[in-house]
Amino acid sequence: MQATTYFFIFVDLFLAVFEDPAVYPLPFLATSLVEVLCLLVFFGRLVHFAKVTPRNVFWKDTKNICIMMAILVTLIDLIIYGALKISNINSIRWSRFLRPIFLINFAESRQIRRVFRSIRNTLPEITYVFLLFMFSVLMFSLMALKLFGDRNLRTVEGSPYFTNYLEIVFDLYVLVTTANSPDVMMPAFDFSWWYSLFFITYVVINTYLFMSVFLAVVYNNYRKHLKNEIRKLAYMKHHKMIEAFNILKVKEGTEFVVQEAQWKQLVKQVAPDISTSHRELLLRVSDEEQKGYVDKKSFVRLADLLNIQVIAMRIQTHPLEHWMPRVYNSAVSLFIRSMVQHKGFVWTYDVIILINAVFIALDEENPLISYAEWVFLSLYILEILLKVYTYEPRAFFAKTQFWNWFDTSIIIAALIATILNASLKSASQYNSQQVLDIVFILRVLRLIRIVDSIQRFRVIMNTLINIVPTMLTFGGLALVVYYMFAIVGMELFQGKIQFFSRNSTAHHALECGNPALKDSLFARAKYCKNNFNDITSSFIVLMELTVVNQWHVLANGFALVTHQAAKLYFVAFHVVVVIMIINILIAFILEAFFVEYSLEKSEVETAIERKIQELGVGIQEEELRDGKLIDNMETNENDLGGEGITKKKSQGLMFKIASTRYRTVDALLQRMFEAEILPEDDGPSVDEILNLSPADVYPKNPTFDSTA
Amino acid sequence: MQATTYFFIFVDLFLAVFEDPAVYPLPFLATSLVEVLCLLVFFGRLVHFAKVTPRNVFWKDTKNICIMMAILVTLIDLIIYGALKISNINSIRWSRFLRPIFLINFAESRQIRRVFRSIRNTLPEITYVFLLFMFSVLMFSLMALKLFGDRNLRTVEGSPYFTNYLEIVFDLYVLVTTANSPDVMMPAFDFSWWYSLFFITYVVINTYLFMSVFLAVVYNNYRKHLKNEIRKLAYMKHHKMIEAFNILKVKEGTEFVVQEAQWKQLVKQVAPDISTSHRELLLRVSDEEQKGYVDKKSFVRLADLLNIQVIAMRIQTHPLEHWMPRVYNSAVSLFIRSMVQHKGFVWTYDVIILINAVFIALDEENPLISYAEWVFLSLYILEILLKVYTYEPRAFFAKTQFWNWFDTSIIIAALIATILNASLKSASQYNSQQVLDIVFILRVLRLIRIVDSIQRFRVIMNTLINIVPTMLTFGGLALVVYYMFAIVGMELFQGKIQFFSRNSTAHHALECGNPALKDSLFARAKYCKNNFNDITSSFIVLMELTVVNQWHVLANGFALVTHQAAKLYFVAFHVVVVIMIINILIAFILEAFFVEYSLEKSEVETAIERKIQELGVGIQEEELRDGKLIDNMETNENDLGGEGITKKKSQGLMFKIASTRYRTVDALLQRMFEAEILPEDDGPSVDEILNLSPADVYPKNPTFDSTA
Repeated sequence: MQATTYFFIFVDLFLAVFEDPAVYPLPFLATSLVEVLCLLVFFGRLVHFAKVTPRNVFWKDTKNICIMMAILVTLIDLIIYGALKISNINSIRWSRFLRPIFLINFAESRQIRRVFRSIRNTLPEITYVFLLFMFSVLMFSLMALKLFGDRNLRTVEGSPYFTNYLEIVFDLYVLVTTANSPDVMMPAFDFSWWYSLFFITYVVINTYLFMSVFLAVVYNNYRKHLKNEIRKLAYMKHHKMIEAFNILKVKEGTEFVVQEAQWKQLVKQVAPDISTSHRELLLRVSDEEQKGYVDKKSFVRLADLLNIQVIAMRIQTHPLEHWMPRVYNSAVSLFIRSMVQHKGFVWTYDVIILINAVFIALDEENPLISYAEWVFLSLYILEILLKVYTYEPRAFFAKTQFWNWFDTSIIIAALIATILNASLKSASQYNSQQVLDIVFILRVLRLIRIVDSIQRFRVIMNTLINIVPTMLTFGGLALVVYYMFAIVGMELFQGKIQFFSRNSTAHHALECGNPALKDSLFARAKYCKNNFNDITSSFIVLMELTVVNQWHVLANGFALVTHQAAKLYFVAFHVVVVIMIINILIAFILEAFFVEYSLEKSEVETAIERKIQELGVGIQEEELRDGKLIDNMETNENDLGGEGITKKKSQGLMFKIASTRYRTVDALLQRMFEAEILPEDDGPSVDEILNLSPADVYPKNPTFDSTA
Repeated sequence: MQATTYFFIFVDLFLAVFEDPAVYPLPFLATSLVEVLCLLVFFGRLVHFAKVTPRNVFWKDTKNICIMMAILVTLIDLIIYGALKISNINSIRWSRFLRPIFLINFAESRQIRRVFRSIRNTLPEITYVFLLFMFSVLMFSLMALKLFGDRNLRTVEGSPYFTNYLEIVFDLYVLVTTANSPDVMMPAFDFSWWYSLFFITYVVINTYLFMSVFLAVVYNNYRKHLKNEIRKLAYMKHHKMIEAFNILKVKEGTEFVVQEAQWKQLVKQVAPDISTSHRELLLRVSDEEQKGYVDKKSFVRLADLLNIQVIAMRIQTHPLEHWMPRVYNSAVSLFIRSMVQHKGFVWTYDVIILINAVFIALDEENPLISYAEWVFLSLYILEILLKVYTYEPRAFFAKTQFWNWFDTSIIIAALIATILNASLKSASQYNSQQVLDIVFILRVLRLIRIVDSIQRFRVIMNTLINIVPTMLTFGGLALVVYYMFAIVGMELFQGKIQFFSRNSTAHHALECGNPALKDSLFARAKYCKNNFNDITSSFIVLMELTVVNQWHVLANGFALVTHQAAKLYFVAFHVVVVIMIINILIAFILEAFFVEYSLEKSEVETAIERKIQELGVGIQEEELRDGKLIDNMETNENDLGGEGITKKKSQGLMFKIASTRYRTVDALLQRMFEAEILPEDDGPSVDEILNLSPADVYPKNPTFDSTA
């Protein structure tokens, strides 16, 4: 269901590729039929929502109203556009601008909506800072006009320097983004070096001070609102768990409890995919004294327990040992296995990788070097085979073994691509460029592995990999903003600038097909391919504008072929994307790093881990990495004993808490603030929640506070 | 003493202006004599230090060793250089590079040293991130070489595109700073839009991700180390206060205390400039029950109490009321005073300012407009006179009234400059350009006032003003780094690039006097004035490099006139200044804003404020601003009574806690972390400090914890 909705949302957004101005043009009938189909799916999804949620909740939700309005408006626009098209009048498909609304407002994109809500909440504060910043820019522009206006200075292009107030404002706004530094200063600087002080003061105040203030405001607000949302979530979770407890509770002695059987049934229902032994472990944590029931305090903790990823590992003998024990345990085999487990093995391959890097950089034409490529490829394949021979294959390819998966897929892809390339070459004496490009990229990617052999790098890499899933949220956010700007940009600028290949003889080929661009910086820098003629070009131009550099050249170019007011489009993009979106991105990366730096195991995690250790079914991460898992197991089994434990032992099961590397976005966000929120809010919130629960007769549990 | 040291440090640094390559050349004999003088002063200061500090402490301090080595090395360098100069051999004054050592290592520059220590501590961590980042750049460069090297693509300038590995690395490093975006991508993008994905991936990973990680690492470490230093300071303070207590203590009943008389004497000694009534107030806070002595807990708090700026305000009648009460209280005078106090008065002047802004933007040549300038000037003077007439002049020009001081000084300066300009004009029919420039700047600065009338802007402005003193620390830091790079830059590049004025007919004038620059981007952009021919030019070039944009053009230009390896100088500058220093600046601004957002009154401040309110001598800040101070006072006096209070009342004194606006750098930094540090560290630290104090017989005070 969720996947279907997403699929149709992306189909709808993707339509821009085929609609006029198109990358691959399709007739209007085709695209409009697909769009109507998408709208029908969205409507169906909405109807489904309306059925499962109570009527008053459904109609109060602005999300649903938004979607309905967007569907209606899009239909109207489609009809009008179609009718006008039939009568050969060209109009604008303005409702395309609204498409990202579907991406934001469906229940599935909670993350993106949260970021948008945080932006909306930040707006008032950032507006005041922005006004102050603009005031400063206007003041400096006025000063610049008075200081330089009457000097008859000329810019490098020979145009008058700082004589028109509006142009000065634009130039100084560009200077804030540093894009025209130091060019904008040079005429004044050439006149007298004193004037450079004006520009230095300007840059310090407006670029360094104000831009940092924007970051501070965005970061502070983002954090504040995120914290608030997480707090709400935590309270809701708590509240619901208490509700569930009140339904299931049974009186046992002086207190209400939940019986073991019911608890197990509940866990089976809410988390059907966890194994029996994992459930057993959770029960042991919840019912520490094995009383046969779970008290309220432990019951409320269940949601947190289920949130923690406990990895269950079945300890199995190597399949080869199973099939041919004698060969696998022979002296040669044991030697090979100990060799692979030795540190020198890793170092040898690090050296091989470095030599490989040198070979890649060398000239491809030399036949010796293209043979060397085969040697390296077989060395890498040999490495993987040896590792699979030594370590248990299912442990080697476990979900959590990111680098093993990475290595293996890169090597196999490289093998396939290289074979494909070689066969194409021998068959047709011709290198397929696409295949060759892929081979090159894969070859270089193989080198990344060296990072994983150095401990300090591994830590940084893990943090970076951790950020990736959350970056997807920002991908969504960026997609929404880019899409809207791209649609507007295409309507404003399509066809105004044309790209001609290098040796084209077309009229005005050098001026991007537009005489207005003659002698402009835009044409001289050969920016003709930076245009809004289709959605991919638009996205690339918007990306260039995000990077900021030379954006004034692009803005001036498009202003020349349309109107000076077109610059407002580019300034608006800068304000929205660079001042808002990029700062949110930086805020998120900063936050993620700070969390990573200060993250310690949460209370609940420690409880589970302690229990795992108590039961003697724990594994150290280092053991896992070194593949000593199986050996260690045997010694462990001798050391420990106990009725409940031996049962698990005989199954050959081990547990470990997943490292933060494999958390979901939401879990990471929750972890970010849970430690901060709960201590202070414990007093009032628990009271509040206790008031909500109908169990007024139930005596307050004094140790309840620590569970929140 | 401190001022003298600073003076000579700056004289020493300033010598670079007169030394070859000089802005104002002076003979070597003159500069070297001044330098020897400076060294003598530094040596004298060091001898003084050595006398006041114990010998083993003095010789253990690396600061002192550093200074001594620097003095010695500079002397040796001076002698060698002088001797070679006499025999007409030109050598390098390399010890100039060491001059900033004096700025860092004298005891006075504690702030700068603290930042340097924090940088040193951050280095290992940032090095690992930097290595990973460089690895990523090298990998992408290798990919770029394989993907684009054999395509026979050409850059805009017509040179081969991405064929040399080292050049690719440099180009892609420049792309990280965004300075050559999108130019570096255009040839590949023109070839196929698919290749733009390579550059977009590169920018996302290396510019956005890694640069944010640098900020995160710098920020996190900066914070951590700052916190640690402040913690140490707080402990030291605590420890010393307990030592002082143990010297002064007297047994009173069951506990040791300090008698009131001794307490007063101590305060008089350590803070001789606070008034008797202020001291009385502090005593009231310390000895709440007026027992005639101060207990240990309150005594230890003394340092914090003295740190808090309590502003004592003597309530006085307006001098005019004193001299001619009848006229000042007449109906006309009262009407004027109420008019000035009315909100409409502020609004009227806001409108006048806006009209003024329009007039400034208009053409100066029109005589009507130059008359208007006189009108505006007299309106502003009238405003100040009216305000001084209405409000008490000493209150109006109090130290804390930043905007009043700002306004008045701007207006008076503008008045003087305008009169000077007018008299010069009538005397010689000639506008002095310097005077006119100042008049223009002052005119525009007057407009800033409008910001202060809007509450929301005022809050942001206050935070910004708050940051200013701390920015001075960063000024010092930047000065040290810039100075060192400038000295090296001058030795490497002096005289290689010359600036010729626009209509010069000199040979190679268009190529900055260096044929190697023919057709280079550097010459075409007319960057000839960006050179290292003297210290001011060097500083301006370094500022441009800090702003980053076009730095590759500068780097390439200087590489062309010397050697390709010269690029390393520019890359080193980027790494040091942009990755380290600027991130520290941003970290500080972020931190300052977060503190401002979350700052609440500290415990000690609240205690003082409560006491002030109890004694009935408090003032609300709003009352102060609205000038209602005097009126309110009279009603207050009727309401309240009490023996100690009436005494103060009769003096017409009022107290208030200074707002955070007027804090010193150190106080702000301490406030930043005090709240965070003390709760957690209370347990161990107090024990530790109690162990240090010799008062083992003294029973531990259970309420002592809250004082730390």
